Amino acid sequence: MEKIIFDTDPGIDDAMAILFAQASADIDLLAITTGFGNANIDTATRNALYLKNRFNLSADVARGAKEPLVIPVDEPADFVHGDNGLGNVDIDETDLPSEVSLAAHDYIIEKVKASPGEITLVAVGRMTNLALALRKCPEIINLVKRVVIMGGAFGYHGNTGNVTPYAEANIIGDPHAADEVLTADWPVTVVGLDVTKKVIMSNDYLARLAECSPTYGPFIYDITRFYANFHQQTDQVDGIYVHDSSAIMQVIAPELFETVEGPIRVITEGPAIGHTMQKTVAKRFPIDEWADCPAQSVCSDVDVDAYLAKYKDILSQAGF
Amino acid sequence: MEKIIFDTDPGIDDAMAILFAQASADIDLLAITTGFGNANIDTATRNALYLKNRFNLSADVARGAKEPLVIPVDEPADFVHGDNGLGNVDIDETDLPSEVSLAAHDYIIEKVKASPGEITLVAVGRMTNLALALRKCPEIINLVKRVVIMGGAFGYHGNTGNVTPYAEANIIGDPHAADEVLTADWPVTVVGLDVTKKVIMSNDYLARLAECSPTYGPFIYDITRFYANFHQQTDQVDGIYVHDSSAIMQVIAPELFETVEGPIRVITEGPAIGHTMQKTVAKRFPIDEWADCPAQSVCSDVDVDAYLAKYKDILSQAGF
Repeated sequence: MEKIIFDTDPGIDDAMAILFAQASADIDLLAITTGFGNANIDTATRNALYLKNRFNLSADVARGAKEPLVIPVDEPADFVHGDNGLGNVDIDETDLPSEVSLAAHDYIIEKVKASPGEITLVAVGRMTNLALALRKCPEIINLVKRVVIMGGAFGYHGNTGNVTPYAEANIIGDPHAADEVLTADWPVTVVGLDVTKKVIMSNDYLARLAECSPTYGPFIYDITRFYANFHQQTDQVDGIYVHDSSAIMQVIAPELFETVEGPIRVITEGPAIGHTMQKTVAKRFPIDEWADCPAQSVCSDVDVDAYLAKYKDILSQAGF
Repeated sequence: MEKIIFDTDPGIDDAMAILFAQASADIDLLAITTGFGNANIDTATRNALYLKNRFNLSADVARGAKEPLVIPVDEPADFVHGDNGLGNVDIDETDLPSEVSLAAHDYIIEKVKASPGEITLVAVGRMTNLALALRKCPEIINLVKRVVIMGGAFGYHGNTGNVTPYAEANIIGDPHAADEVLTADWPVTVVGLDVTKKVIMSNDYLARLAECSPTYGPFIYDITRFYANFHQQTDQVDGIYVHDSSAIMQVIAPELFETVEGPIRVITEGPAIGHTMQKTVAKRFPIDEWADCPAQSVCSDVDVDAYLAKYKDILSQAGF
């Protein structure tokens, strides 16, 4: 079983990813650390606690950063995730459990130090908490098992950005943090829009999920109605792109993804702010700000049919 | 016949392009405007005058900018083009003709105004002269027939930069000028490293050129010895990439090139400085610094065999 700390800004697809991780027999969801982005930090943390309560998660919830390292905090993406971050479904806030007293980055440092080599950090929001943990305690680089992030748009299939033609929301939301996380010398696998926009759950698929997974499926169906409407309006997609769950799937079934190896830099200013750029040739160039960075893995393709079948299997088998 | 003003920093492949233009019955080479880059402005201008003299060019020579618009001027690329910019072959400097009294950008403005809709600007060095002309006389946007540039690396075939993994020398040498030229509302076709690194003239090919074109071939063979040695050492290429001549070939034989349409921005700072980025989807993004820029054509592929055959034909038929 993979022990993971899940750093997230729930967020509709974040909530799906949390439930997918919880449903999987291959994952031990130790904690949820929260961030801003799809919702502000208060709403994101409230939503994490709501999910913990409603679905009996044993995972701790630790509150994270409320703003990026350098750039100003942006408005929450309520036009994607609803005002309450969960597609405006009713949230019962009575008797919610408490978050832990440690800040997210301190919690990450403590847990990683306590279980050296065992914990995978899976981050699907802004990379701020991970960057703060790295800054405060650089030795976690050698203590984390690995890092899996959902973020970025590398251009392996054309312009796949969602905020700009070239930038994905999690990266443009805190590009400096992303650059620090992706250039740190720990093993990172990046699951970006190059693959997550290929994984589309149709509304029919989501309806079938609601039938075959009584524990999780109906909730997923309900929260994705707002999200599906956004996809219909912006990209004429019948259904939803599966972003954050893809980071969990990469942990469960890495064989479903093709990867490209090479160092990554994040653009932190100008028209391409938030763009993630991977160097894929070994040669050192006359000017080369990639040359001294570690190679990371970027997912460049995915077996969509196998992915959707596996997702349904895992949700179906859990919680009956 | 296409009337062209050729903006260039000779430079070995620049000299080849000048001779190729001169050799072509389809091109009327009105003028050579000079820039810094492969050599400094004095050496580049001297080389243009030397070529005019040696090969009886009727083209005027106008001296251009000696430094970029914003960033500091870089050292000339003498490790690519030799100390004298022409592969260190002997240059006879006696009785060289004079350059015109106008600065390059003023010359461009005057000639374009005098022949509205007739002149194609072909620029194969830093875009500084063109940007200065645009700044001083924006109405040339509507008076130029079209603009063809050699520059940029768009990533259509992976990391094709030559100065950085993502940046080509002409663009990184004055990225602000390039952004102004590529976002101006005149029709631009860009011939960048995505295609020019596919067009390789082997040393055997260059030797055959020396035989079949007594006027130009031996000189091209001689100046490319230094250049070929650079290619062998850096990229293990037996021969040379054909950069600047490809802009001329695009004017002569556009059918040899595949193109992608869309607005272009140039990155002017950070690790990706000098990278050229084309937006290829029509959708307007929430943040989109491409949206209000005109679509330009970027060459994404080239018929190499037909190119090399045509190049040899044109040089062979000229000057016997």
